[in-house]
Amino acid sequence: MSVTAPRGFRAAGVCAGLKPSGARDVALIVNDGPNRAAAGVFTRNRVKAAPVLWSEQVVKGGRVHAVVLNAGNANACTGPGGFADTHTTAERVAAALDDSAAEVAVCSTGLIGERLDMPKLLAGADAAVAAAARDGGLPAADAIRTTDSVAKIAFRRGSGYTIGAMAKGAGMLAPALATMLSVVTTDADLTAEQCDRMLRAATAVSFDRIDADGCLSTNDTVLLLANGASGTAPSEAEFQTLLTEVCADLAQQLIADAEGSTKSIAIEVVGAAGEDDALTVARTIARNALFKCAMFGEDPNWGRVLAAVGTTDAVFDPDQLNVAINGVWICRSGAVGDSRSKVDLKPRDVTVTVDLSAGSAAATIWTTDLTTGYVHENSAYST
Amino acid sequence: MSVTAPRGFRAAGVCAGLKPSGARDVALIVNDGPNRAAAGVFTRNRVKAAPVLWSEQVVKGGRVHAVVLNAGNANACTGPGGFADTHTTAERVAAALDDSAAEVAVCSTGLIGERLDMPKLLAGADAAVAAAARDGGLPAADAIRTTDSVAKIAFRRGSGYTIGAMAKGAGMLAPALATMLSVVTTDADLTAEQCDRMLRAATAVSFDRIDADGCLSTNDTVLLLANGASGTAPSEAEFQTLLTEVCADLAQQLIADAEGSTKSIAIEVVGAAGEDDALTVARTIARNALFKCAMFGEDPNWGRVLAAVGTTDAVFDPDQLNVAINGVWICRSGAVGDSRSKVDLKPRDVTVTVDLSAGSAAATIWTTDLTTGYVHENSAYST
Repeated sequence: MSVTAPRGFRAAGVCAGLKPSGARDVALIVNDGPNRAAAGVFTRNRVKAAPVLWSEQVVKGGRVHAVVLNAGNANACTGPGGFADTHTTAERVAAALDDSAAEVAVCSTGLIGERLDMPKLLAGADAAVAAAARDGGLPAADAIRTTDSVAKIAFRRGSGYTIGAMAKGAGMLAPALATMLSVVTTDADLTAEQCDRMLRAATAVSFDRIDADGCLSTNDTVLLLANGASGTAPSEAEFQTLLTEVCADLAQQLIADAEGSTKSIAIEVVGAAGEDDALTVARTIARNALFKCAMFGEDPNWGRVLAAVGTTDAVFDPDQLNVAINGVWICRSGAVGDSRSKVDLKPRDVTVTVDLSAGSAAATIWTTDLTTGYVHENSAYST
Repeated sequence: MSVTAPRGFRAAGVCAGLKPSGARDVALIVNDGPNRAAAGVFTRNRVKAAPVLWSEQVVKGGRVHAVVLNAGNANACTGPGGFADTHTTAERVAAALDDSAAEVAVCSTGLIGERLDMPKLLAGADAAVAAAARDGGLPAADAIRTTDSVAKIAFRRGSGYTIGAMAKGAGMLAPALATMLSVVTTDADLTAEQCDRMLRAATAVSFDRIDADGCLSTNDTVLLLANGASGTAPSEAEFQTLLTEVCADLAQQLIADAEGSTKSIAIEVVGAAGEDDALTVARTIARNALFKCAMFGEDPNWGRVLAAVGTTDAVFDPDQLNVAINGVWICRSGAVGDSRSKVDLKPRDVTVTVDLSAGSAAATIWTTDLTTGYVHENSAYST
C-alpha cells in the first residue's frame, strides 16, 4: 500500500550502493497528477541539511511533481558543495521527467558531515525513475530505512479518496519532528493551502508528540502530496481526521521500533492548568534519563517522575501531585500511595499518568525507555 | 582533612543501619564557634525533599550550630510525615547539644518516596554526637556516600585561616546543583551575609557548571559554616578565590566519579555573543544523548555536536560554526574540517570546543559520556 495506495502515484526503491550493506537506498515518488498540490513540515533545528533547505523552497511554490529520497548519507553539515549536490539530484530527476527541478523535493537520511557519492546517487535516481511503478510503494518504504528494523507504512480510505504514507526513523526521535522522513500521498482534490494547514495540524498532534531521546535531527521532513486523481474534494473534517490518523499511526510505528527500546511509554499528563503545561511536563518526563532507565529496569520509580516534574515551570503544588503507572496510583498527594508491587511493568506498553491537580487540560507524549541497547547502538553507529 | 581541617569543627560518621550494606550512613558536623555564621544553596527543583525545606529555614536565620546528614534515604516525596521526621531529627541533635533545633541543618540522600526508619536514624544521631571529634572529617565524608565509589573531600589554606569541605554525588548530576550534598567549613571570621554572597558566587561557576545526566535532584544542598576560630577576617578576594577552588575541586571529583562514566568531558564554548549563549549551548551539548553515546564509543562525531547546537536559540550562523575535539578542528565553517582520524579519544579527559563565531564570550560545562554502565546502574538501583 504505502504511498502508491492513492491513484496517480508511482514509486520505486532501488539499490544505488550508498548503504554499505548493498540494500535499497534510493526511493522515488512520482505524482502523475492531474494536480500537484503539496505542503511540507521541516525540522526546527537551525542546523538544516541541504535537502531540507532545498525542499523548503520547493514546497513554498505549493507544487511537487516528484520526491527523491536517499538513505546512507544525510547530506547535512556539508556546506555549499552539499547544497549543490542536492540541486544536481533534483535536476537529474526533473530532466528524466521532462520537468523543472523547482517541483522536485529531495530528502536524505544517514551519516552527517560527509559528502554524497554523487555518481552512485545519480545512477540510482535514474534507475528509480525507470523503475517507478504503481506497485513501488513498498520498495520505496524499504529504501529509506537506516537503523529501522522494519519499513513503516500506513493508509486510510476516505469517502471517495485514499491517503497513503511511508516513514523512516528509529533514533534521534524528538518533537518538532522525530528524526524522520515521511511522505504522505492522497488522490483527494486539495489546494496547497489546504495541504499546508491540515498537514501542520496533523503533525502537531502526532509526530510532534513522540520523543525517544530528545535529539532533534537536521533532516526531519514530512511531505503531503495531493493530486486530485480521485476527482473528490473531501470534507475537510473527514480528511483532517484521516490524515491525523495516518500520521499518528506512523508515529506509533516509529516509537515501537525506536533504537534499542524495550518499552513504548505513553506519558499522560492530566489536571493541567493548560495544554502547554501538560506538554511541558510530559516532555520533561520523557527526556529524564533516570526515569527512562527505571522503565528499562521495570522499576515503578515514581520518585524520579516527581523529580522531573519539579524541574518544570508548570502550575502545580508539589503536595497535590498524583502519579499512576499502568493504572496503579503509587503516588498520591506528593507522597507514597498504593504499593509499588501492584504495578506490572513486564509488557512493552506502559502508561504513566501524572495528575497535576491544577486544572482540566491534558496531553500525551509517547517515548521509550533508555537501554543498554540504545547506548550500544548509538556508540557503535556513526550518524 | 575534610570539614575538620579548619579549627573549631568536630565531625563523625557512624553506622545507623540505614544502608543495607551496613556501611556508615549518618554524619554529623558540629561547629564549636565562637561564631556560627552560615549560608546555604539549595536545589531549584520545585519538588523539594523535607530536609531541604527544613534547612532553607535554618539558613535564613544565618546561624548553624550543627549539620546532621544521612545516606540511604532521601526523605523526599514523603509528605507532612516526612517533614516531621526531619524536624524530630534536628530536635534530637539539638537536645544532645543543649541548643535549639533552629540552628541544626539536616541533609538526606538516597531513596525517594520512602519514610525514614526513625528509630535507627535517631540512634545514629545520638551515636554521632557522642563520636564527634576533631579527626572525624573522613568518616563523615564516607558516611554520606550513596553510589559514590570514593569519598570526596577538599581543603585550602588561606592567610591565617583554612577552608575544608566534603561532598557526595554520583548520579543525578545537573546544574542548579548536581544531586549532591556538600558542606564547606572555615575558621575564617565572616558574617552570614558574606557567607551567602560568596557561596552563591562560588557555586555558580563550579557545582552549577557540571551536568552528568541533566537530572535535577530533590535534595541538593551546599552549606557553608564559618566559625571565626582563626580570629582572621579574610580578604574577600582571597577567600572568594579559595572557596571557588574548593567547590570546583569537589565538582571535578563528582564528574570523575559519575555513575558508569568512562569520560570526563569539558564542553568549552567560545566566540559566543554573551555568556548566557555560551552556557546554553554548552549545556545543550552536555545533555545530548547521541553525542554522549558517541563519546562512549570514542567516535569524534561532530555532526551530533552541530545537531545539538542547532536546537538552541543562541546567536550563530550555521555556516560559521567550528568544532574541535581534543584540539583537532574537525568541523570548520559548518562543514567537514580536519580528519577525524587525528582525534585521539582514548584518554578519559576529553575537551570539545565549539566556536560560535558570534562574539567574544565563553563558558565551560563539564559532563560525562552516556554508557551502558550508566544505564545498568540506574535501571538496577532504585533512587
